[in-house]
Amino acid sequence: MPAAIDFYFDFSSPYGYLASRRIDGIAKRHGRGVRWRPMMLGPALAATGGKPLVELPLKGDYARRDLARTARLWGIPFALPTRFPVVTLAAARAFYWLEQTAPERAVPFAEAAFTALFVEDRSIADRQVVRQLLAGVGADAEAGALAIGTPEIKARLKAETDAAIERGVFGSPFVFVDGEPFWGADRLDQVERWLETGGF
Amino acid sequence: MPAAIDFYFDFSSPYGYLASRRIDGIAKRHGRGVRWRPMMLGPALAATGGKPLVELPLKGDYARRDLARTARLWGIPFALPTRFPVVTLAAARAFYWLEQTAPERAVPFAEAAFTALFVEDRSIADRQVVRQLLAGVGADAEAGALAIGTPEIKARLKAETDAAIERGVFGSPFVFVDGEPFWGADRLDQVERWLETGGF
Repeated sequence: MPAAIDFYFDFSSPYGYLASRRIDGIAKRHGRGVRWRPMMLGPALAATGGKPLVELPLKGDYARRDLARTARLWGIPFALPTRFPVVTLAAARAFYWLEQTAPERAVPFAEAAFTALFVEDRSIADRQVVRQLLAGVGADAEAGALAIGTPEIKARLKAETDAAIERGVFGSPFVFVDGEPFWGADRLDQVERWLETGGF
Repeated sequence: MPAAIDFYFDFSSPYGYLASRRIDGIAKRHGRGVRWRPMMLGPALAATGGKPLVELPLKGDYARRDLARTARLWGIPFALPTRFPVVTLAAARAFYWLEQTAPERAVPFAEAAFTALFVEDRSIADRQVVRQLLAGVGADAEAGALAIGTPEIKARLKAETDAAIERGVFGSPFVFVDGEPFWGADRLDQVERWLETGGF
């Protein structure tokens, strides 16, 4: 089987959420798996002098419109959260804890976290919400809540984020296909074409 | 005939160039014309805290790769200029002078200016090059070279840029279809869908 696609995102990234709803389908059509890699976008933005889109004048208004429009075009439920952006450390750490202890639950947890934030308007910055999401995918929520406070899991997320920046990731979503980088939900069509053709 | 599409761009914008090669075809397929609106992106970026993509670390390397890749995918000749970004005041002023005095030559001039910069690696910041481009579309190059130094033409470009910012333009290319804004060459597929469906 050819190598999996690497899918980097921050849980607070609305374009990351939109991409998350399509990436597995795209990969599957071409016999590929997807490695989901949550990361902290803040340090990556600091490395490029960027800022979250919706915080910028003009761009913020446009981004709100573009997100809603793209979600409609793709048939994906979407509502910009009331509190935004949110701190997603707890969710990202919980993902890596699951990956280590119950790997089959990690992606379902990530999908549930995205849905909680961008469909149900629940704040995934709230550890109580993260606990509910863990329970929802059949994980031991108490053990998870404890684990994400440990130095080991904190270091794991930091290492994943550093590795992503080292690889050139500076935004969310960010996809690698056999080493070829694609930034943005609007590059998914190119990702699919690349998978079809092996490069162009 | 339905209203023309508004196509805003800076002559130094590589994604603006890529879009310029497709926008007329897209519009024509749906019975529309295109109003080409060169502007100065600098003031618009200042309004949003943005910077030219290729000046940013990480993003710059990625942008170079993405531009070349997108040009290959779309079958458009492209080479990032040796000197970049370039000051495009003279070219933008020449466009508006043509629009006032020989409107049928304005878009051919804009196409020639984009080709000079992004295919032939000629610096359109050089007034001698602008003069050659004017002559190339059959305009009076001497009259044009004089005109672009006048307060009237300088004020015209400034007014067009101010009007663009007022309308919410903060990047290049930027397209309006019946008031609906689309930012980026990667939104041309949405532009086409919008024209087909009247909105989604």
